Amino acid sequence: MAEDAPAAPLFRRLCIIGIGLIGSSLARLVRERGDIAATLVLHDRSADVMERARELNLGDVVEPNPVRAVEHCDGVILCVPVGAYHATMSVIAAHLLPGCVLSDVGSTKSSVLRDLVPLLPEGVHLVPGHPMAGTEFSGPDAGFAALFRERWVILTPPPGTDAAAVERISEMWRRAGATLEVMDAAAHDKVVAIVSHLPHMIAFTICSTADDLAQETRDNVLRFAASGFRDFTRIAASDVAMWRDIFLNNREALLEMLARFTEDAQALGRAVRWGEAEFIEDRISRGRKVRRSLIEMKQA
Amino acid sequence: MAEDAPAAPLFRRLCIIGIGLIGSSLARLVRERGDIAATLVLHDRSADVMERARELNLGDVVEPNPVRAVEHCDGVILCVPVGAYHATMSVIAAHLLPGCVLSDVGSTKSSVLRDLVPLLPEGVHLVPGHPMAGTEFSGPDAGFAALFRERWVILTPPPGTDAAAVERISEMWRRAGATLEVMDAAAHDKVVAIVSHLPHMIAFTICSTADDLAQETRDNVLRFAASGFRDFTRIAASDVAMWRDIFLNNREALLEMLARFTEDAQALGRAVRWGEAEFIEDRISRGRKVRRSLIEMKQA
Repeated sequence: MAEDAPAAPLFRRLCIIGIGLIGSSLARLVRERGDIAATLVLHDRSADVMERARELNLGDVVEPNPVRAVEHCDGVILCVPVGAYHATMSVIAAHLLPGCVLSDVGSTKSSVLRDLVPLLPEGVHLVPGHPMAGTEFSGPDAGFAALFRERWVILTPPPGTDAAAVERISEMWRRAGATLEVMDAAAHDKVVAIVSHLPHMIAFTICSTADDLAQETRDNVLRFAASGFRDFTRIAASDVAMWRDIFLNNREALLEMLARFTEDAQALGRAVRWGEAEFIEDRISRGRKVRRSLIEMKQA
Repeated sequence: MAEDAPAAPLFRRLCIIGIGLIGSSLARLVRERGDIAATLVLHDRSADVMERARELNLGDVVEPNPVRAVEHCDGVILCVPVGAYHATMSVIAAHLLPGCVLSDVGSTKSSVLRDLVPLLPEGVHLVPGHPMAGTEFSGPDAGFAALFRERWVILTPPPGTDAAAVERISEMWRRAGATLEVMDAAAHDKVVAIVSHLPHMIAFTICSTADDLAQETRDNVLRFAASGFRDFTRIAASDVAMWRDIFLNNREALLEMLARFTEDAQALGRAVRWGEAEFIEDRISRGRKVRRSLIEMKQA
Protein backbone atom coordinates (compact mmCIF):
# COMPACT_ATOMS: atom_id res chain seq x y z
CA MET A 1 0.00 0.00 0.00
CA ALA A 2 2.56 2.55 1.11
CA GLU A 3 4.66 1.44 -1.85
CA ASP A 4 1.89 1.71 -4.44
CA ALA A 5 0.51 5.23 -3.83
CA PRO A 6 2.51 8.30 -2.86
CA ALA A 7 1.77 8.92 0.83
CA ALA A 8 2.09 12.13 2.82
CA PRO A 9 5.19 12.31 5.03
CA LEU A 10 4.49 11.02 8.54
CA PHE A 11 6.57 13.76 10.11
CA ARG A 12 7.01 17.38 9.15
CA ARG A 13 10.46 17.55 10.75
CA LEU A 14 12.08 14.40 12.11
CA CYS A 15 15.27 14.34 14.17
CA ILE A 16 17.51 11.28 14.50
CA ILE A 17 19.98 11.51 17.37
CA GLY A 18 22.92 9.11 16.98
CA ILE A 19 24.16 8.21 13.49
CA GLY A 20 25.50 4.69 13.95
CA LEU A 21 24.42 1.53 12.15
CA ILE A 22 20.73 1.88 13.07
CA GLY A 23 20.50 5.66 12.96
CA SER A 24 22.20 5.91 9.58
CA SER A 25 20.11 3.06 8.18
CA LEU A 26 16.94 4.84 9.27
CA ALA A 27 18.29 8.12 7.82
CA ARG A 28 18.98 6.46 4.46
CA LEU A 29 15.49 4.99 4.47
CA VAL A 30 13.89 8.36 5.26
CA ARG A 31 15.88 10.02 2.45
CA GLU A 32 15.16 7.28 -0.09
CA ARG A 33 11.44 7.05 0.54
CA GLY A 34 10.45 10.66 1.02
CA ASP A 35 7.18 9.68 2.72
CA ILE A 36 8.50 9.41 6.26
CA ALA A 37 9.68 12.97 6.92
CA ALA A 38 9.55 16.22 4.94
CA THR A 39 12.76 17.36 6.61
CA LEU A 40 15.34 15.12 8.28
CA VAL A 41 17.62 16.56 10.97
CA LEU A 42 20.61 14.56 12.20
CA HIS A 43 22.69 14.98 15.33
CA ASP A 44 25.54 12.97 16.83
CA ARG A 45 27.75 13.80 19.79
CA SER A 46 30.81 13.05 17.60
CA ALA A 47 31.92 15.82 15.22
CA ASP A 48 33.64 13.21 13.03
CA VAL A 49 30.45 11.20 12.68
CA MET A 50 28.48 14.35 11.79
CA GLU A 51 31.11 15.26 9.21
CA ARG A 52 30.78 11.80 7.71
CA ALA A 53 26.97 12.09 7.73
CA ARG A 54 27.30 15.31 5.76
CA GLU A 55 29.66 13.70 3.26
CA LEU A 56 27.24 10.81 2.84
CA ASN A 57 24.35 13.29 2.52
CA LEU A 58 22.35 11.36 5.10
CA GLY A 59 20.11 14.26 6.21
CA ASP A 60 18.68 17.61 5.13
CA VAL A 61 20.29 19.22 8.16
CA VAL A 62 23.20 17.99 10.30
CA GLU A 63 22.96 20.02 13.50
CA PRO A 64 25.81 19.94 16.05
CA ASN A 65 23.69 21.50 18.81
CA PRO A 66 21.28 18.86 20.22
CA VAL A 67 18.83 21.50 21.45
CA ARG A 68 18.60 23.13 18.05
CA ALA A 69 18.41 19.68 16.44
CA VAL A 70 15.15 18.78 18.22
CA GLU A 71 13.57 22.25 18.19
CA HIS A 72 10.49 22.50 15.97
CA CYS A 73 10.50 18.71 15.37
CA ASP A 74 7.30 16.66 15.52
CA GLY A 75 9.32 13.44 15.72
CA VAL A 76 12.58 12.54 17.53
CA ILE A 77 14.21 9.11 17.42
CA LEU A 78 17.00 8.27 19.86
CA CYS A 79 19.56 6.00 18.20
CA VAL A 80 22.27 6.30 20.86
CA PRO A 81 23.47 3.50 23.19
CA VAL A 82 20.85 2.95 25.90
CA GLY A 83 23.31 4.08 28.57
CA ALA A 84 23.24 7.60 27.07
CA TYR A 85 19.45 8.08 27.20
CA HIS A 86 19.26 9.88 30.52
CA ALA A 87 22.01 12.36 29.66
CA THR A 88 20.61 12.97 26.17
CA MET A 89 17.07 13.44 27.45
CA SER A 90 18.26 15.86 30.15
CA VAL A 91 19.56 18.13 27.42
CA ILE A 92 16.65 17.93 24.96
CA ALA A 93 13.55 17.41 27.14
CA ALA A 94 12.73 21.07 27.73
CA HIS A 95 12.96 21.76 24.00
CA LEU A 96 10.57 19.09 22.72
CA LEU A 97 7.43 20.50 21.09
CA PRO A 98 4.06 19.61 22.59
CA GLY A 99 2.62 16.85 20.39
CA CYS A 100 6.09 15.62 19.42
CA VAL A 101 6.51 11.84 19.22
CA LEU A 102 9.65 10.61 20.96
CA SER A 103 10.81 7.12 20.03
CA ASP A 104 14.02 5.09 20.12
CA VAL A 105 15.66 1.95 18.77
CA GLY A 106 17.30 0.62 21.95
CA SER A 107 17.63 -3.08 22.70
CA THR A 108 16.43 -2.75 26.31
CA LYS A 109 13.03 -1.30 27.08
CA SER A 110 12.42 -1.20 30.85
CA SER A 111 15.51 1.00 31.14
CA VAL A 112 14.07 3.36 28.53
CA LEU A 113 10.94 3.90 30.58
CA ARG A 114 13.08 4.32 33.70
CA ASP A 115 15.35 6.91 32.06
CA LEU A 116 12.90 8.85 29.88
CA VAL A 117 9.49 8.89 31.59
CA PRO A 118 10.54 11.06 34.58
CA LEU A 119 11.90 13.70 32.20
CA LEU A 120 9.04 13.56 29.68
CA PRO A 121 7.36 16.99 29.21
CA GLU A 122 3.58 17.25 29.23
CA GLY A 123 2.15 16.62 25.75
CA VAL A 124 5.18 14.73 24.38
CA HIS A 125 4.31 11.14 23.38
CA LEU A 126 6.82 8.41 24.20
CA VAL A 127 6.66 5.33 21.93
CA PRO A 128 9.69 3.14 22.68
CA GLY A 129 10.70 0.78 19.87
CA HIS A 130 13.25 -1.94 19.16
CA PRO A 131 14.00 -2.93 15.58
CA MET A 132 15.46 -6.45 15.83
CA ALA A 133 17.95 -5.89 13.09
CA GLY A 134 21.67 -5.33 12.98
CA THR A 135 24.94 -6.51 11.56
CA GLU A 136 28.39 -7.04 13.03
CA PHE A 137 29.40 -3.60 11.67
CA SER A 138 28.85 -0.17 13.20
CA GLY A 139 29.04 3.53 12.36
CA PRO A 140 27.45 5.78 9.71
CA ASP A 141 29.11 3.95 6.80
CA ALA A 142 27.69 0.59 7.87
CA GLY A 143 24.02 1.53 7.51
CA PHE A 144 21.72 0.65 4.63
CA ALA A 145 18.06 1.41 4.00
CA ALA A 146 16.99 -2.24 3.66
CA LEU A 147 18.27 -3.20 7.12
CA PHE A 148 14.75 -3.39 8.58
CA ARG A 149 13.14 -5.32 5.74
CA GLU A 150 11.29 -8.39 6.97
CA ARG A 151 12.62 -7.89 10.48
CA TRP A 152 10.61 -7.53 13.66
CA VAL A 153 10.13 -4.21 15.37
CA ILE A 154 8.80 -4.45 18.92
CA LEU A 155 7.03 -1.38 20.33
CA THR A 156 6.55 -1.04 24.07
CA PRO A 157 4.33 2.03 24.61
CA PRO A 158 3.41 2.50 28.28
CA PRO A 159 -0.30 2.06 29.10
CA GLY A 160 -2.30 5.12 28.07
CA THR A 161 0.04 6.24 25.30
CA ASP A 162 -1.64 8.35 22.61
CA ALA A 163 -2.89 5.94 19.93
CA ALA A 164 -2.14 8.33 17.07
CA ALA A 165 1.49 8.59 18.19
CA VAL A 166 1.82 4.80 18.31
CA GLU A 167 0.30 4.62 14.84
CA ARG A 168 2.78 7.13 13.38
CA ILE A 169 5.77 5.17 14.67
CA SER A 170 4.12 1.92 13.56
CA GLU A 171 3.58 3.28 10.07
CA MET A 172 7.21 4.47 9.91
CA TRP A 173 8.39 0.91 10.56
CA ARG A 174 5.83 -0.56 8.16
CA ARG A 175 7.26 1.71 5.49
CA ALA A 176 10.70 0.37 6.46
CA GLY A 177 9.42 -3.10 5.57
CA ALA A 178 9.33 -4.38 9.16
CA THR A 179 6.71 -6.47 10.96
CA LEU A 180 5.34 -4.95 14.15
CA GLU A 181 4.62 -6.38 17.56
CA VAL A 182 3.46 -4.56 20.69
CA MET A 183 4.28 -5.89 24.15
CA ASP A 184 5.12 -4.55 27.58
CA ALA A 185 8.68 -3.58 28.37
CA ALA A 186 9.30 -6.35 30.92
CA ALA A 187 8.14 -9.11 28.55
CA HIS A 188 10.33 -7.63 25.82
CA ASP A 189 13.38 -7.56 28.04
CA LYS A 190 12.96 -11.19 29.05
CA VAL A 191 12.66 -12.40 25.46
CA VAL A 192 15.65 -10.45 24.15
CA ALA A 193 17.70 -11.57 27.16
CA ILE A 194 17.54 -15.19 25.95
CA VAL A 195 17.23 -14.58 22.23
CA SER A 196 19.99 -12.00 21.85
CA HIS A 197 21.72 -10.71 24.99
CA LEU A 198 22.73 -14.05 26.50
CA PRO A 199 24.01 -15.39 23.14
CA HIS A 200 26.15 -12.26 22.81
CA MET A 201 27.39 -12.60 26.38
CA ILE A 202 28.32 -16.22 25.68
CA ALA A 203 30.02 -15.34 22.42
CA PHE A 204 32.13 -12.61 24.02
CA THR A 205 33.01 -15.01 26.82
CA ILE A 206 34.11 -17.93 24.67
CA CYS A 207 36.36 -15.60 22.67
CA SER A 208 37.98 -14.43 25.93
CA THR A 209 38.32 -18.01 27.11
CA ALA A 210 40.07 -18.96 23.88
CA ASP A 211 42.23 -15.85 24.05
CA ASP A 212 43.47 -16.90 27.52
CA LEU A 213 44.66 -20.33 26.42
CA ALA A 214 48.35 -21.18 26.22
CA GLN A 215 49.99 -19.81 23.09
CA GLU A 216 50.22 -23.10 21.18
CA THR A 217 46.57 -24.00 21.66
CA ARG A 218 45.48 -20.42 20.92
CA ASP A 219 47.34 -20.38 17.61
CA ASN A 220 45.65 -23.62 16.68
CA VAL A 221 42.26 -22.25 17.76
CA LEU A 222 42.64 -19.47 15.22
CA ARG A 223 43.79 -21.88 12.53
CA PHE A 224 41.09 -24.44 13.06
CA ALA A 225 38.14 -22.19 13.85
CA ALA A 226 35.55 -24.65 12.59
CA SER A 227 32.02 -23.50 12.04
CA GLY A 228 31.04 -23.69 15.70
CA PHE A 229 33.57 -21.23 17.00
CA ARG A 230 33.55 -19.07 13.88
CA ASP A 231 29.80 -18.48 14.21
CA PHE A 232 30.36 -17.34 17.79
CA THR A 233 33.01 -14.83 16.75
CA ARG A 234 30.63 -13.29 14.22
CA ILE A 235 28.22 -12.55 17.04
CA ALA A 236 31.13 -11.32 19.15
CA ALA A 237 32.24 -8.71 16.61
CA SER A 238 29.63 -6.16 17.69
CA ASP A 239 29.90 -2.59 18.95
CA VAL A 240 31.51 -2.25 22.39
CA ALA A 241 29.60 0.71 23.86
CA MET A 242 26.27 -0.55 22.60
CA TRP A 243 26.67 -3.98 24.14
CA ARG A 244 28.14 -2.69 27.39
CA ASP A 245 25.03 -0.54 27.77
CA ILE A 246 22.67 -3.36 26.81
CA PHE A 247 24.16 -5.68 29.43
CA LEU A 248 24.05 -2.99 32.13
CA ASN A 249 20.50 -1.96 31.24
CA ASN A 250 18.96 -5.42 31.04
CA ARG A 251 20.73 -6.64 34.15
CA GLU A 252 17.90 -8.50 35.87
CA ALA A 253 16.61 -10.46 32.90
CA LEU A 254 20.11 -11.17 31.62
CA LEU A 255 21.40 -12.45 34.95
CA GLU A 256 18.35 -14.64 35.33
CA MET A 257 18.90 -16.19 31.91
CA LEU A 258 22.63 -16.57 32.58
CA ALA A 259 21.85 -18.38 35.84
CA ARG A 260 19.43 -20.75 34.10
CA PHE A 261 21.88 -21.37 31.28
CA THR A 262 24.78 -21.98 33.68
CA GLU A 263 22.76 -24.53 35.64
CA ASP A 264 21.88 -26.30 32.41
CA ALA A 265 25.49 -26.24 31.15
CA GLN A 266 26.72 -27.63 34.46
CA ALA A 267 24.11 -30.39 34.30
CA LEU A 268 25.29 -31.35 30.81
CA GLY A 269 28.92 -31.21 31.96
CA ARG A 270 28.08 -33.47 34.87
CA ALA A 271 26.39 -35.94 32.50
CA VAL A 272 29.54 -35.96 30.35
CA ARG A 273 31.71 -36.57 33.41
CA TRP A 274 29.59 -39.51 34.57
CA GLY A 275 28.90 -40.92 31.13
CA GLU A 276 25.12 -40.42 31.28
CA ALA A 277 24.42 -41.04 27.60
CA GLU A 278 20.62 -40.68 27.81
CA PHE A 279 20.77 -37.25 29.45
CA ILE A 280 23.22 -36.07 26.78
CA GLU A 281 21.03 -37.43 23.97
CA ASP A 282 18.00 -35.66 25.44
CA ARG A 283 19.81 -32.31 25.44
CA ILE A 284 21.05 -32.73 21.88
CA SER A 285 17.57 -33.78 20.73
CA ARG A 286 16.04 -30.69 22.29
CA GLY A 287 18.48 -28.50 20.40
CA ARG A 288 17.32 -30.13 17.20
CA LYS A 289 13.68 -29.71 18.20
CA VAL A 290 14.09 -25.98 18.79
CA ARG A 291 15.88 -25.69 15.47
CA ARG A 292 13.02 -27.48 13.70
CA SER A 293 10.49 -25.17 15.33
CA LEU A 294 12.43 -22.17 14.04
CA ILE A 295 12.52 -23.60 10.54
CA GLU A 296 8.76 -24.23 10.65
CA MET A 297 8.28 -20.62 11.74
CA LYS A 298 10.63 -19.47 8.98
CA GLN A 299 12.96 -17.86 11.52
CA ALA A 300 15.98 -19.93 10.44
CA MET B 1 48.72 -31.64 -9.70
CA ALA B 2 46.33 -34.52 -9.05
CA GLU B 3 43.73 -32.66 -11.05
CA ASP B 4 45.95 -32.03 -14.08
CA ALA B 5 47.32 -35.50 -14.80
CA PRO B 6 45.52 -38.83 -14.36
CA ALA B 7 46.99 -40.45 -11.26
CA ALA B 8 47.00 -44.10 -10.25
CA PRO B 9 44.39 -45.00 -7.60
CA LEU B 10 45.83 -44.74 -4.09
CA PHE B 11 44.01 -47.89 -2.99
CA ARG B 12 43.30 -51.08 -4.84
CA ARG B 13 40.23 -51.83 -2.71
CA LEU B 14 39.02 -49.26 -0.21
CA CYS B 15 36.31 -49.91 2.38
CA ILE B 16 34.28 -47.16 4.04
CA ILE B 17 32.43 -48.28 7.16
CA GLY B 18 29.55 -45.97 8.08
CA ILE B 19 27.65 -44.15 5.32
CA GLY B 20 26.54 -40.95 7.04
CA LEU B 21 27.32 -37.37 6.06
CA ILE B 22 31.10 -37.85 6.08
CA GLY B 23 31.22 -41.43 4.84
CA SER B 24 28.85 -40.75 1.94
CA SER B 25 30.70 -37.54 1.03
CA LEU B 26 33.97 -39.46 0.90
CA ALA B 27 32.27 -42.21 -1.15
CA ARG B 28 30.94 -39.67 -3.65
CA LEU B 29 34.41 -38.16 -3.93
CA VAL B 30 36.03 -41.56 -4.49
CA ARG B 31 33.48 -42.39 -7.19
CA GLU B 32 33.75 -39.02 -8.92
CA ARG B 33 37.54 -38.86 -9.03
CA GLY B 34 38.50 -42.42 -9.83
CA ASP B 35 42.06 -41.86 -8.61
CA ILE B 36 41.49 -42.68 -4.94
CA ALA B 37 40.36 -46.31 -5.12
CA ALA B 38 39.99 -48.82 -7.95
CA THR B 39 37.16 -50.52 -6.06
CA LEU B 40 35.02 -48.95 -3.34
CA VAL B 41 33.31 -51.18 -0.77
CA LEU B 42 30.69 -49.73 1.56
CA HIS B 43 29.27 -51.10 4.78
CA ASP B 44 26.84 -49.70 7.34
CA ARG B 45 25.24 -51.43 10.32
CA SER B 46 21.85 -50.17 9.10
CA ALA B 47 20.19 -52.17 6.30
CA ASP B 48 18.14 -49.10 5.36
CA VAL B 49 21.25 -46.97 4.96
CA MET B 50 22.91 -49.66 2.82
CA GLU B 51 19.78 -49.88 0.69
CA ARG B 52 19.90 -46.11 0.22
CA ALA B 53 23.62 -46.27 -0.63
CA ARG B 54 22.78 -48.80 -3.34
CA GLU B 55 20.02 -46.59 -4.73
CA LEU B 56 22.40 -43.63 -4.77
CA ASN B 57 25.08 -45.82 -6.36
CA LEU B 58 27.62 -44.66 -3.80
CA GLY B 59 29.95 -47.68 -4.06
CA ASP B 60 31.05 -50.53 -6.33
CA VAL B 61 30.03 -52.99 -3.63
CA VAL B 62 27.66 -52.54 -0.70
CA GLU B 63 28.48 -55.40 1.67
CA PRO B 64 26.21 -56.17 4.65
CA ASN B 65 28.81 -58.36 6.35
CA PRO B 66 31.52 -56.19 7.94
CA VAL B 67 34.10 -58.99 7.85
CA ARG B 68 33.59 -59.55 4.14
CA ALA B 69 33.55 -55.77 3.60
CA VAL B 70 37.13 -55.33 4.86
CA GLU B 71 38.59 -58.60 3.51
CA HIS B 72 41.13 -58.08 0.73
CA CYS B 73 41.12 -54.28 1.28
CA ASP B 74 44.34 -52.26 1.36
CA GLY B 75 42.48 -49.31 2.91
CA VAL B 76 39.69 -49.08 5.50
CA ILE B 77 38.16 -45.82 6.73
CA LEU B 78 35.96 -45.83 9.82
CA CYS B 79 33.17 -43.25 9.45
CA VAL B 80 31.05 -44.40 12.40
CA PRO B 81 30.41 -42.42 15.62
CA VAL B 82 33.55 -42.59 17.79
CA GLY B 83 31.65 -44.54 20.46
CA ALA B 84 31.31 -47.46 18.02
CA TYR B 85 35.04 -47.84 17.24
CA HIS B 86 35.86 -50.52 19.78
CA ALA B 87 32.92 -52.74 18.81
CA THR B 88 33.56 -52.27 15.09
CA MET B 89 37.28 -52.98 15.42
CA SER B 90 36.60 -56.10 17.50
CA VAL B 91 34.69 -57.52 14.55
CA ILE B 92 37.05 -56.54 11.71
CA ALA B 93 40.55 -56.57 13.28
CA ALA B 94 41.38 -60.20 12.60
CA HIS B 95 40.37 -59.79 8.96
CA LEU B 96 42.51 -56.80 8.05
CA LEU B 97 45.23 -57.58 5.48
CA PRO B 98 48.88 -57.03 6.47
CA GLY B 99 49.90 -53.70 4.93
CA CYS B 100 46.35 -52.37 5.09
CA VAL B 101 45.99 -48.70 6.05
CA LEU B 102 43.31 -48.15 8.69
CA SER B 103 42.07 -44.58 9.06
CA ASP B 104 39.03 -42.76 10.39
CA VAL B 105 37.22 -39.41 10.38
CA GLY B 106 36.30 -39.12 14.06
CA SER B 107 36.25 -35.80 15.92
CA THR B 108 38.12 -37.14 18.95
CA LYS B 109 41.57 -38.64 18.55
CA SER B 110 42.93 -39.80 21.93
CA SER B 111 39.91 -42.09 22.19
CA VAL B 112 40.72 -43.54 18.78
CA LEU B 113 44.18 -44.56 19.90
CA ARG B 114 42.70 -45.93 23.14
CA ASP B 115 40.07 -48.00 21.30
CA LEU B 116 41.97 -49.16 18.20
CA VAL B 117 45.67 -49.58 19.09
CA PRO B 118 45.19 -52.55 21.48
CA LEU B 119 43.29 -54.44 18.75
CA LEU B 120 45.58 -53.48 15.86
CA PRO B 121 47.04 -56.56 14.08
CA GLU B 122 50.75 -56.70 13.27
CA GLY B 123 51.44 -55.03 9.92
CA VAL B 124 48.26 -52.92 9.79
CA HIS B 125 48.99 -49.18 9.72
CA LEU B 126 46.79 -46.89 11.79
CA VAL B 127 46.58 -43.27 10.52
CA PRO B 128 43.81 -41.49 12.47
CA GLY B 129 42.32 -38.46 10.74
CA HIS B 130 39.78 -35.74 11.38
CA PRO B 131 38.35 -33.78 8.47
CA MET B 132 37.08 -30.53 10.02
CA ALA B 133 34.05 -30.35 7.80
CA GLY B 134 30.38 -30.95 8.28
CA THR B 135 26.92 -29.52 7.93
CA GLU B 136 23.85 -29.57 10.14
CA PHE B 137 22.50 -32.48 8.09
CA SER B 138 23.24 -36.19 8.43
CA GLY B 139 22.78 -39.48 6.61
CA PRO B 140 23.73 -40.81 3.16
CA ASP B 141 21.59 -38.28 1.31
CA ALA B 142 23.29 -35.32 3.00
CA GLY B 143 26.79 -36.01 1.65
CA PHE B 144 28.49 -34.26 -1.26
CA ALA B 145 31.92 -34.68 -2.82
CA ALA B 146 32.99 -31.06 -2.28
CA LEU B 147 32.46 -31.19 1.50
CA PHE B 148 36.21 -31.32 2.22
CA ARG B 149 37.27 -28.60 -0.20
CA GLU B 150 39.42 -25.96 1.46
CA ARG B 151 38.81 -27.50 4.86
CA TRP B 152 41.42 -28.70 7.32
CA VAL B 153 42.15 -32.37 7.87
CA ILE B 154 44.16 -33.13 10.99
CA LEU B 155 46.09 -36.42 11.06
CA THR B 156 47.30 -37.82 14.38
CA PRO B 157 49.49 -40.83 13.53
CA PRO B 158 51.12 -42.32 16.65
CA PRO B 159 54.96 -42.03 16.78
CA GLY B 160 56.62 -44.59 14.51
CA THR B 161 53.72 -44.93 12.09
CA ASP B 162 54.74 -46.11 8.61
CA ALA B 163 55.50 -42.97 6.54
CA ALA B 164 54.12 -44.44 3.32
CA ALA B 165 50.78 -45.14 5.03
CA VAL B 166 50.59 -41.56 6.32
CA GLU B 167 51.37 -40.32 2.81
CA ARG B 168 48.59 -42.39 1.23
CA ILE B 169 45.99 -40.98 3.60
CA SER B 170 47.46 -37.50 3.18
CA GLU B 171 47.25 -37.76 -0.59
CA MET B 172 43.64 -38.96 -0.37
CA TRP B 173 42.71 -35.79 1.52
CA ARG B 174 44.76 -33.62 -0.81
CA ARG B 175 42.76 -35.04 -3.69
CA ALA B 176 39.64 -34.17 -1.69
CA GLY B 177 40.79 -30.54 -1.78
CA ALA B 178 41.67 -30.37 1.93
CA THR B 179 44.65 -28.82 3.70
CA LEU B 180 46.60 -31.15 5.98
CA GLU B 181 48.03 -30.75 9.44
CA VAL B 182 49.75 -33.36 11.59
CA MET B 183 49.67 -33.12 15.39
CA ASP B 184 49.51 -35.41 18.37
CA ALA B 185 46.15 -36.68 19.56
CA ALA B 186 46.14 -34.79 22.88
CA ALA B 187 46.87 -31.43 21.21
CA HIS B 188 44.13 -32.12 18.67
CA ASP B 189 41.60 -32.95 21.35
CA LYS B 190 42.32 -29.74 23.26
CA VAL B 191 41.92 -27.54 20.19
CA VAL B 192 38.68 -29.11 19.01
CA ALA B 193 37.31 -28.97 22.55
CA ILE B 194 37.32 -25.18 22.45
CA VAL B 195 36.85 -24.66 18.70
CA SER B 196 34.01 -27.10 18.16
CA HIS B 197 32.90 -29.30 21.07
CA LEU B 198 32.31 -26.57 23.65
CA PRO B 199 30.42 -24.37 21.14
CA HIS B 200 28.17 -27.32 20.36
CA MET B 201 27.68 -28.06 24.04
CA ILE B 202 26.73 -24.43 24.62
CA ALA B 203 24.38 -24.38 21.65
CA PHE B 204 22.56 -27.52 22.79
CA THR B 205 22.33 -26.04 26.27
CA ILE B 206 20.91 -22.67 25.31
CA CYS B 207 18.24 -24.38 23.21
CA SER B 208 17.27 -26.49 26.24
CA THR B 209 17.28 -23.42 28.46
CA ALA B 210 14.94 -21.63 26.05
CA ASP B 211 12.77 -24.73 25.75
CA ASP B 212 12.29 -24.75 29.54
CA LEU B 213 11.01 -21.18 29.73
CA ALA B 214 7.39 -20.41 30.54
CA GLN B 215 5.11 -20.88 27.55
CA GLU B 216 4.62 -17.20 26.74
CA THR B 217 8.31 -16.37 26.74
CA ARG B 218 9.12 -19.54 24.81
CA ASP B 219 6.63 -18.68 22.08
CA ASN B 220 8.21 -15.26 21.79
CA VAL B 221 11.70 -16.77 21.71
CA LEU B 222 10.73 -18.72 18.62
CA ARG B 223 9.15 -15.68 17.03
CA PHE B 224 11.97 -13.29 17.72
CA ALA B 225 14.96 -15.57 17.24
CA ALA B 226 17.32 -12.78 16.27
CA SER B 227 20.63 -13.60 14.69
CA GLY B 228 22.33 -14.47 17.99
CA PHE B 229 20.03 -17.26 18.98
CA ARG B 230 19.38 -18.43 15.42
CA ASP B 231 23.10 -18.98 14.82
CA PHE B 232 23.22 -21.12 17.95
CA THR B 233 20.36 -23.30 16.78
CA ARG B 234 22.13 -23.97 13.50
CA ILE B 235 25.02 -25.44 15.45
CA ALA B 236 22.55 -27.31 17.64
CA ALA B 237 20.87 -29.11 14.75
CA SER B 238 23.58 -31.78 14.49
CA ASP B 239 23.44 -35.57 14.70
CA VAL B 240 22.56 -36.95 18.15
CA ALA B 241 24.64 -40.15 18.30
CA MET B 242 27.68 -38.47 16.80
CA TRP B 243 27.69 -35.64 19.32
CA ARG B 244 26.87 -37.86 22.29
CA ASP B 245 29.93 -39.95 21.40
CA ILE B 246 32.13 -36.89 20.85
CA PHE B 247 31.26 -35.49 24.27
CA LEU B 248 31.83 -38.82 25.98
CA ASN B 249 35.11 -39.43 24.15
CA ASN B 250 36.67 -36.02 24.66
CA ARG B 251 35.59 -35.79 28.27
CA GLU B 252 38.77 -34.44 29.86
CA ALA B 253 39.48 -31.66 27.38
CA LEU B 254 35.82 -30.72 27.09
CA LEU B 255 35.25 -30.51 30.85
CA GLU B 256 38.39 -28.42 31.21
CA MET B 257 37.21 -25.97 28.56
CA LEU B 258 33.69 -25.91 30.05
CA ALA B 259 35.16 -25.10 33.47
CA ARG B 260 37.25 -22.24 32.05
CA PHE B 261 34.31 -20.93 30.07
CA THR B 262 31.97 -21.12 33.08
CA GLU B 263 34.42 -19.18 35.23
CA ASP B 264 34.67 -16.52 32.55
CA ALA B 265 30.90 -16.34 32.07
CA GLN B 266 30.40 -15.99 35.83
CA ALA B 267 33.00 -13.22 35.94
CA LEU B 268 31.18 -11.35 33.19
CA GLY B 269 27.85 -11.91 34.94
CA ARG B 270 29.34 -10.53 38.16
CA ALA B 271 30.58 -7.45 36.31
CA VAL B 272 27.07 -6.91 34.93
CA ARG B 273 25.58 -7.27 38.41
CA TRP B 274 27.98 -4.73 39.92
CA GLY B 275 28.02 -2.37 36.95
CA GLU B 276 31.73 -2.78 36.20
CA ALA B 277 31.71 -1.11 32.79
CA GLU B 278 35.45 -1.41 32.14
CA PHE B 279 35.53 -5.15 32.71
CA ILE B 280 32.57 -5.59 30.36
CA GLU B 281 34.17 -3.42 27.67
CA ASP B 282 37.38 -5.45 27.94
CA ARG B 283 35.50 -8.70 27.34
CA ILE B 284 33.61 -7.31 24.37
CA SER B 285 36.81 -5.87 22.91
CA ARG B 286 38.53 -9.24 23.18
CA GLY B 287 35.70 -10.84 21.25
CA ARG B 288 36.27 -8.31 18.48
CA LYS B 289 40.01 -8.91 18.59
CA VAL B 290 39.61 -12.67 18.15
CA ARG B 291 37.20 -12.03 15.30
CA ARG B 292 39.72 -9.72 13.62
CA SER B 293 42.45 -12.35 13.96
CA LEU B 294 40.20 -14.88 12.27
CA ILE B 295 39.47 -12.50 9.43
CA GLU B 296 43.19 -11.82 8.96
CA MET B 297 43.77 -15.58 8.86
CA LYS B 298 40.87 -15.95 6.41
CA GLN B 299 39.05 -18.30 8.78
CA ALA B 300 35.95 -16.09 8.96
